[in-house]
Amino acid sequence: MTLDLHIIRQAEQVIRQYIHQTPVLSSDTLNRQTGSQLHFKCENFQKSGSFKIRGACYSVLSLPVELAQKGVVAHSVGNHGGALALIAKLRNIPVSIVVPSDAPSVKIDAIRQYGAEVIICDPTMEARESTSLQIVEEKGATYIPPFDSYPVMTGQGTLGLELFKQIDNIDAVVVPVGGGGLISGISYAIKALNPAIEVIGVEPTAANFAAQSLAAGTLCESKNSQLKTIADGLAAGTGKLTLPFIKKYVDELLVVDDELIVEAMELIWTRMKIIVEPAAAAALAAVLKHSDRFHRRNTVLIMTGGNVNLNRLPWS
Amino acid sequence: MTLDLHIIRQAEQVIRQYIHQTPVLSSDTLNRQTGSQLHFKCENFQKSGSFKIRGACYSVLSLPVELAQKGVVAHSVGNHGGALALIAKLRNIPVSIVVPSDAPSVKIDAIRQYGAEVIICDPTMEARESTSLQIVEEKGATYIPPFDSYPVMTGQGTLGLELFKQIDNIDAVVVPVGGGGLISGISYAIKALNPAIEVIGVEPTAANFAAQSLAAGTLCESKNSQLKTIADGLAAGTGKLTLPFIKKYVDELLVVDDELIVEAMELIWTRMKIIVEPAAAAALAAVLKHSDRFHRRNTVLIMTGGNVNLNRLPWS
Repeated sequence: MTLDLHIIRQAEQVIRQYIHQTPVLSSDTLNRQTGSQLHFKCENFQKSGSFKIRGACYSVLSLPVELAQKGVVAHSVGNHGGALALIAKLRNIPVSIVVPSDAPSVKIDAIRQYGAEVIICDPTMEARESTSLQIVEEKGATYIPPFDSYPVMTGQGTLGLELFKQIDNIDAVVVPVGGGGLISGISYAIKALNPAIEVIGVEPTAANFAAQSLAAGTLCESKNSQLKTIADGLAAGTGKLTLPFIKKYVDELLVVDDELIVEAMELIWTRMKIIVEPAAAAALAAVLKHSDRFHRRNTVLIMTGGNVNLNRLPWS
Repeated sequence: MTLDLHIIRQAEQVIRQYIHQTPVLSSDTLNRQTGSQLHFKCENFQKSGSFKIRGACYSVLSLPVELAQKGVVAHSVGNHGGALALIAKLRNIPVSIVVPSDAPSVKIDAIRQYGAEVIICDPTMEARESTSLQIVEEKGATYIPPFDSYPVMTGQGTLGLELFKQIDNIDAVVVPVGGGGLISGISYAIKALNPAIEVIGVEPTAANFAAQSLAAGTLCESKNSQLKTIADGLAAGTGKLTLPFIKKYVDELLVVDDELIVEAMELIWTRMKIIVEPAAAAALAAVLKHSDRFHRRNTVLIMTGGNVNLNRLPWS
């Protein structure tokens, strides 16, 4: 398997009834401030509150029926877990989400609210993986990875197709990079449609694993399961399957400090009155830091999600 | 002078180039939770962050040129001050905003950022009014009231016309009530177009001056300039000009407690990922409290604005 434009188009048809076509917003103030024409693609308004529903949805829908009925499993305390829980509920199949015991209770509650079985494990990556594997073996459930999987990358790629329908004359697309599932799908789809469009990845300085991996020519993973960046959605190491797509289709990777991410997040909240998570704000942070690079260009910023703990905002 | 549908239509043409046609959003989750079909009219995305730009804009644009060039003045620490400052700047005329010395510095800074001259006065309503009057006399500037003025009410009435263009088969419109400028304009326009549509006003329990005034048959004003409700935008007493319109065109006034307003605000932020101020959330609070009344009905909720101090959220 690999990525394929024809299959991404099929995925778009298949997942359409389960997701929103999210709006693209703009802000005169932020255009003036950056000197660019910014188009904010609002996946924070997406079902489950993030783009992750696209990949989770296509993964579930492309399972054979007998397999799907045995259920799906993921380990996640973030957007992937919520997205998988939601789509499993909509399809009426069992879903188990493995969460580490140190996960914030608000996040665990959110996953439970979607109707998922929540299984608490020790707060290590090994425990998360072994607990997930155990459920796969016991129940015959299918493990759905958060990013390093072709069905997931295909689902995220539908976002690239959608941009083309909504925005004319795109010059550049700025994509926050965590494990790389989103930017793999988007960059593949966009370059297939128009290779002249630049695809720029953004990583937090403290978690620039994609840039490190490209430089080293081998996967540099997160050694530490503790968060090193405010943009928790971007704290993952790059995937084995995603890295080759980043190498081939992404024009440049930029890094941004947490301080600038928080500043960008506050600008978006204050000026645009929309709630985006730090990972999404990283895209604007990159434009603020490299404004010359985006000057007068039609620049699309992927607002990856809006799932934020409203009791703990980074500026208060 | 009075309100007139023909003039509201003219106002709509005149102010069009200075304001946004704001989107109408919906939420499957909130529809399920309330049993209603909710249409959120997002004036939180409006220029200056609230609907107040409509009335301020029409007030400024309907001034004779020689008068406009002498400038405009208002006393406000809220949305009206920001809106007037913005439209005056866009029209390149002088603007002075009188603010009491106890106003939060973030609000004063926001008004300054729009380019207005800020004049600090003692924190009493008398001082605010006398200081404004002084500027009117010294500069020949025109005082623009926040709500009790036909041009202001006419400008807010354009929101009623806009709803008709955007939403089919409206059953009810729920409007937060402060001084009554917004609900006067909207209810007048809506009843002129379709008297079968219900217009429901919402007041905070601690500031239900419109209901009190209707019951007493005379204006019951706010005796205390201190805020009594989290919905500071709704803390004003009803106007002399607005009360007769509320009496004639509004079907019912509902009250909601601050606790429910905060709950509604958190629901909108969490579920819809948009930033609305407490005054806006009061509309959803009324639907939550009286869900039977709105059951299965196409209900429009006016999201009046989104200007919130992000460092001091009511639930944290």
